[in-house]
Amino acid sequence: MCELLAMSANVPTDICFSFSGLMQRGGNTGPHKDGWGVTFYEGKGCRSFKDPLPSAESPIATLVTEYPIKSEAVICHIRQANSGAVCLENTHPFTRQMWGKNWTYAHNGQLKDYAQSLPVKYHIPVGTTDSEHAFCWILDQIYIQFGVQEPSDQDLFAFIAELSEKINRLGVFNLLLSNGDCLFAYCSNNLHWITRRAPFGEASLIDAEMIVDFQQVTTANDVVTVIATQPLTDDERWHKMQAGEWLLFKLGEPILKGQTPTKIG
Amino acid sequence: MCELLAMSANVPTDICFSFSGLMQRGGNTGPHKDGWGVTFYEGKGCRSFKDPLPSAESPIATLVTEYPIKSEAVICHIRQANSGAVCLENTHPFTRQMWGKNWTYAHNGQLKDYAQSLPVKYHIPVGTTDSEHAFCWILDQIYIQFGVQEPSDQDLFAFIAELSEKINRLGVFNLLLSNGDCLFAYCSNNLHWITRRAPFGEASLIDAEMIVDFQQVTTANDVVTVIATQPLTDDERWHKMQAGEWLLFKLGEPILKGQTPTKIG
Repeated sequence: MCELLAMSANVPTDICFSFSGLMQRGGNTGPHKDGWGVTFYEGKGCRSFKDPLPSAESPIATLVTEYPIKSEAVICHIRQANSGAVCLENTHPFTRQMWGKNWTYAHNGQLKDYAQSLPVKYHIPVGTTDSEHAFCWILDQIYIQFGVQEPSDQDLFAFIAELSEKINRLGVFNLLLSNGDCLFAYCSNNLHWITRRAPFGEASLIDAEMIVDFQQVTTANDVVTVIATQPLTDDERWHKMQAGEWLLFKLGEPILKGQTPTKIG
Repeated sequence: MCELLAMSANVPTDICFSFSGLMQRGGNTGPHKDGWGVTFYEGKGCRSFKDPLPSAESPIATLVTEYPIKSEAVICHIRQANSGAVCLENTHPFTRQMWGKNWTYAHNGQLKDYAQSLPVKYHIPVGTTDSEHAFCWILDQIYIQFGVQEPSDQDLFAFIAELSEKINRLGVFNLLLSNGDCLFAYCSNNLHWITRRAPFGEASLIDAEMIVDFQQVTTANDVVTVIATQPLTDDERWHKMQAGEWLLFKLGEPILKGQTPTKIG
């Protein structure tokens, strides 16, 4: 499996604190040693840092921890390989372009029979993971449904929720997806989120001896949501998402939500 | 304008030496201070490092100089903005996917009337540069010509050369383009290349006090081609490309070449 982390904020915010906790799970406090990656949006642009090395040993991960890139949307993934070899092309997040936006995708879980059940034509995977294949299938279905005309967020993400539910029938599909403006989360069985806003307090990482006083690093208007497979702090209240539940965040706030049918058995 | 650098090699090779020279031109020995980026292919995967900061001051550029990522194909760009603001979405190289491959693109030059002359439908730019617009137009034309079926390298790159010649009519279009397997270079007015192979010798950077003895870091079978807008060393013989000339490299060797009509006047 693997671990996911994402952020949505109303002001450019760095993710050094949360990332410091997560990267320890890549070969230190956790077994997710088969590569890692993170994508930061800055305006319409985004940049990714990726390494097939374990995050706990990666010089690039150290740079990301120490160099505070400020972003309004971030998606991060550390990998424990189950489908596809350990190599760069199989390292999440995956980014593709649609309607003049960068779309970034990361998946936790495992899918069966995905090649047969999710045929792709227009978007062909580069690597050999079930995850990237499912991303390509989502992009194909969106292209077939909407063509070159971008729909409203409401129509688009309701459609993506339907697609997520179909993919989820093939196994476990915890999904994080962003186009820079919006951050979409679909819970198969394992996602938690927290929205931090004034009055800000302290928080302690579970995976490293590190405490942050958010009061010191924020202004009264900041709203920052963090989503992760497992809570990253042990002294805050994280919301656990339900199976089949989806949420859409924009500028740190949840703006749309829904519940898809869950699997039987 | 800007500066371009690319490498094609038959064994995974690091580009630290050439990159050390080039990055000095981003705010130190040269005026190209409006961001920089580099894309490394490793197998079918690729990873990019980008920064809107001048390369001579960028902590990420320092990491790339010190962390020897071994690659068979590299494309690198340092920017002096002329079209589009200084921001991440306008920072080269640009990467998109086609036929299950990552395609990476960097452009030196400036184009007039590109929005009217190069209409796009399927591939929409994220940023506001003439360069990314031309890349999207190339991808659109390839999609219209070949659809979902990948053609032979010969047919594909001959077609890309035709497209390059059309774009070149709009101004200056020095192009580097790679799909990981092949590296394509189109010269509008300013590209040089060199192929290094046994017996290897020493070389001295023009932009930094740095000498490398390639004999020490290679084996007898290594073949490494470097392409740059301007030669990076002053004690080797670089080939100057002619206006309208194009070259295709694979595993360090030139495998196809051609000459397109040049502009009148």
